[in-house]
Amino acid sequence: MKRPIGMLDSGVGGLTVVRELMRQLPKEKIIYIGDTLRCPYGPRPFEEVRKFTWELVRFLLTYNIKMLVIACNTATAVVLDELQRSLDIPVVGVIAPGTRAALKVTRSKRIGVIGTKGTIHSDAYQKSLKMIDNYVYVKSVACPDFVPIVERGDFHKKQTFEIVKKNLLPFQFEEIDTLILGCTHYPLLQKQIQKAMGRRVTLINSGEETGRELSTILQYSNLLNIYALEGKHKFFTTGDAAMFEKIASQWLDEKNYVTQQIRLE
Amino acid sequence: MKRPIGMLDSGVGGLTVVRELMRQLPKEKIIYIGDTLRCPYGPRPFEEVRKFTWELVRFLLTYNIKMLVIACNTATAVVLDELQRSLDIPVVGVIAPGTRAALKVTRSKRIGVIGTKGTIHSDAYQKSLKMIDNYVYVKSVACPDFVPIVERGDFHKKQTFEIVKKNLLPFQFEEIDTLILGCTHYPLLQKQIQKAMGRRVTLINSGEETGRELSTILQYSNLLNIYALEGKHKFFTTGDAAMFEKIASQWLDEKNYVTQQIRLE
Repeated sequence: MKRPIGMLDSGVGGLTVVRELMRQLPKEKIIYIGDTLRCPYGPRPFEEVRKFTWELVRFLLTYNIKMLVIACNTATAVVLDELQRSLDIPVVGVIAPGTRAALKVTRSKRIGVIGTKGTIHSDAYQKSLKMIDNYVYVKSVACPDFVPIVERGDFHKKQTFEIVKKNLLPFQFEEIDTLILGCTHYPLLQKQIQKAMGRRVTLINSGEETGRELSTILQYSNLLNIYALEGKHKFFTTGDAAMFEKIASQWLDEKNYVTQQIRLE
Repeated sequence: MKRPIGMLDSGVGGLTVVRELMRQLPKEKIIYIGDTLRCPYGPRPFEEVRKFTWELVRFLLTYNIKMLVIACNTATAVVLDELQRSLDIPVVGVIAPGTRAALKVTRSKRIGVIGTKGTIHSDAYQKSLKMIDNYVYVKSVACPDFVPIVERGDFHKKQTFEIVKKNLLPFQFEEIDTLILGCTHYPLLQKQIQKAMGRRVTLINSGEETGRELSTILQYSNLLNIYALEGKHKFFTTGDAAMFEKIASQWLDEKNYVTQQIRLE
């Protein structure tokens, strides 16, 4: 089916999911909207996250999308259930894929989760993990410093590692063997996080895992595009298009997209 | 939903999928049937594989299963499409999960596949990989010696590595970075295969990957069991129950099952 896949995020973080989607499903066309103007969603009240997310969803629906991906952990935690009940297309969030990957990887059943304040306070990962396995131990830590670092593009700066290390201190004596990067911005800090956690801890990249699950659900729902990709991916931002374009060109391996600023009514 | 998951295999190989299912979905009950008496299916004509598989399916359906897993690559290659069209429960094979995991892992897009003669001649992996990505290079090799080694329990013998190495010689100059173990028996030879291929090649274990996809599809279809597991898993074999029991106790981490020999009419 040639209809595009719609994806939304509070900002640029969802581009890590886009990158995986382009790589794992090269025939699928993506319509992406990043609400960069109002990013981050993490510290906002739930009702506001809900309102903003619905605005992005209504915009994407005008593109006749065959599937909706909520590439933002905060929005997934707050609005996923409601969207799944309301829309007649498959709606996929980033929390369930991260959960399943962690349960596949862990041997000790001691799992860490990092995310924004909104995601961590919603307890969405804890609930999702426990729903499948009651015996798993979960330690969740909010890392509010990480998103600003990534949105500023500071992931190569020297002091970044010190900040990362400090945020991850609560895991020091937890003996987890798996850490879920519960925010789509965090894979950009993957090297620093891995260094701080040590190499015995496996990091779960929700972008990669979501790409994989999209593929499963598309095929299972008979929605895969089996023809060659026609035209370009479309990336919309509520913020500055040049800034968005710059980050996209740094993160993505392909140039097969157009970027455009829009204003949501 | 408390109804059990049904799983069939030509023999004991599917227990590698059971192991992953018990680990990744500890609340789900499994009804397994292994057609040990008529194993292996790999060298049999397609029509015979089809007939035998349907006999196993009819047996499993008497247990009111909520989902059917074809844990045998040969049976998946031959009968999956027909079963998906005929049954009103989700039917999952082992080929699509292996395909998707390989596409997620590969960086060079040069992928190897090993399997029985039946699986390799059906070209099922090649087709499944190309359906999602036309630009992937696939090298498929039948390894008919592997299943007998595993069914005999010879995976620790000295000469086993020499046989494994010889079967994998066709990959010598292929420069693949990912190898799909396209037979549920092969994970039992994982160490030897990894040694023969070298550590730069990532092995894809279809059992692990199928466990992961079952979880996705169960949740997406609202079929996950959210209650504690009641009673024991049931393993049926058309062959010798004591032999089956012995292998199951070697492979599985838990003892939470009963084994029984049955005769298919």
